[in-house]
Amino acid sequence: MTFEAVWWADEGPEPAVGYVDQRKLPQAFVRALATDTDAVVAAIATLGVRGAPAIGVFGAYGVALARLLHRDDDDFARAASRIRNARPTAVNLAWAVDRLLAQPADRYLAEARALHDEQRAVDRAIGEHGAELMPRSGAVLTHCNTGPLATAGGGTALGVIIAAHARGRKLHVYVGETRPLLQGARLTTFELALAGVPATLIADGAAAATMRAKDVRAVIVGADRIATNGDTANKIGTYGVAIAAAHHGIPFYVAAPRSTIDFALRDGSEIHIEERAADEVRGFGATMAAPADVAAYNPAFDVTPGHLVAGIVTEYGVARPPYAESLPDLATRPSFGMLLGRS
Amino acid sequence: MTFEAVWWADEGPEPAVGYVDQRKLPQAFVRALATDTDAVVAAIATLGVRGAPAIGVFGAYGVALARLLHRDDDDFARAASRIRNARPTAVNLAWAVDRLLAQPADRYLAEARALHDEQRAVDRAIGEHGAELMPRSGAVLTHCNTGPLATAGGGTALGVIIAAHARGRKLHVYVGETRPLLQGARLTTFELALAGVPATLIADGAAAATMRAKDVRAVIVGADRIATNGDTANKIGTYGVAIAAAHHGIPFYVAAPRSTIDFALRDGSEIHIEERAADEVRGFGATMAAPADVAAYNPAFDVTPGHLVAGIVTEYGVARPPYAESLPDLATRPSFGMLLGRS
Repeated sequence: MTFEAVWWADEGPEPAVGYVDQRKLPQAFVRALATDTDAVVAAIATLGVRGAPAIGVFGAYGVALARLLHRDDDDFARAASRIRNARPTAVNLAWAVDRLLAQPADRYLAEARALHDEQRAVDRAIGEHGAELMPRSGAVLTHCNTGPLATAGGGTALGVIIAAHARGRKLHVYVGETRPLLQGARLTTFELALAGVPATLIADGAAAATMRAKDVRAVIVGADRIATNGDTANKIGTYGVAIAAAHHGIPFYVAAPRSTIDFALRDGSEIHIEERAADEVRGFGATMAAPADVAAYNPAFDVTPGHLVAGIVTEYGVARPPYAESLPDLATRPSFGMLLGRS
Repeated sequence: MTFEAVWWADEGPEPAVGYVDQRKLPQAFVRALATDTDAVVAAIATLGVRGAPAIGVFGAYGVALARLLHRDDDDFARAASRIRNARPTAVNLAWAVDRLLAQPADRYLAEARALHDEQRAVDRAIGEHGAELMPRSGAVLTHCNTGPLATAGGGTALGVIIAAHARGRKLHVYVGETRPLLQGARLTTFELALAGVPATLIADGAAAATMRAKDVRAVIVGADRIATNGDTANKIGTYGVAIAAAHHGIPFYVAAPRSTIDFALRDGSEIHIEERAADEVRGFGATMAAPADVAAYNPAFDVTPGHLVAGIVTEYGVARPPYAESLPDLATRPSFGMLLGRS
């Protein structure tokens, strides 16, 4: 089974942006519609839509929707700005919004569709390049959710795993549950089951023990923002997994589209890390575990230093260290939009 | 505020064993009384009392209670056997019950009290030795629960932190929530608040990022079993924390009574690791996160290699590497029972 995580919904009485509501998974597979800017912003801010590339595609459709709803240019500009800022760390969202805004207004929707098509093509290329890095058989480990739900395409790190599985590699995937929001438990296990890839869920704290006990051969994760030296911001927990992988001599890979690379950043120290609400850590879904007044430190992301990353898989291939040389090279490659004949 | 996790309750109309009901924490602080063998067994079996040393003390009082309630020797023997087997994996429980049964019947209560006093003395000594290892000020990190609730004394790793705080060291404790059962979130934050020690809860995956962002100066944890080379079995997640601490050059300490050292084990590879139910990882409490049919790997413990441990704090002082030399030395020291003039 495959599905679209995000789509332009023009079959109904009024235009809308459709999305699979990721807050409801895996208990329910709910297709929701955002019919105004408030709903678009809320879906992003409350993680109804999450995953940097998926947010980018969704935000682009959101801007196209806002342009249809707001005749007044100032109202529209405010709406576009709200969408652009709905989440701070994901570079794709601002990038996608800016890309639309650089077009004539009557081309916003076409541009959002083009961006979505490009995302699919980019993910397909990432899957193909990354599949070569996966072992012929054995255990691999991932963290958070980087599948179709996260990208609105085929996925990045999970797309690599699914592509390798489709090519006959006998992988068994250990999935970190990814506290506090449990994207691994809720979404990655769901997507791997849909794709028919054998998978086992673990508590995040069990990653190091799993690497040793289960002979993990490779770790692959996505990214929210990558600096030009390879420093990689990704879901909280990634950095500890990378350190543990290094300790066990296991290659640690990052899979992400070029749009995730922030060519303006020399290193990860410049990446702003979003801190989220303490209640996410105090509780587990509807169950409160900790005392209500205990302080909690809840960074949404951490930064894995480039020297712990064995390779960064983009749509252009696998970039290898030293990243300060291999990554800037990617800046000048023709975009997949051009390759698709669209921009 | 301090409190007893377990106590002999002889103020009421009938004798009983008192305990803080850990199932209700941190939402409610309930002092419960077990007035018969059924209640003693149920409190242990359903985790009303948990933590291996605390279970031992509670079980000892339970046997003393059973002796008062059962005139018939066969009835008493059955009761003692039920208490001894209330949690088959807790070694301290069987050890404590056997220790009582080796005494004349009229000395059971005195022996239970002696055992409790020894536990307090051992914990106090661990706290004193370990406090010297804590920084004068700054952040420290711990994992799981190792305070008064777990030992019925002052605690091991948490006892060290509380002792250092009492001596004026300005510590701020980062507490790993300790999935899947969240002992850190539920119990450690509660105990630190009672002790007045500033504390912040984190997701287990945030440990590495916290070490870097918050300038963590030391990590201290408890132990379930220690081999003579310093390999330490402790709550799942400990191994990853130890690797991350090494990566950041942060000293990683273990605090545990000598009784935790298994002098028959040359290294950690001989330690059997209990695997617990998959549902613990799939959800928490009433909240299920993962699909009900996803496989989960749920080892209760992991083994941290001795070479990652900067020091092991016991009641006799701080053992340093090489542990194959420093730990076996402890086997021949006089017991704290002897030092207290009681056995």
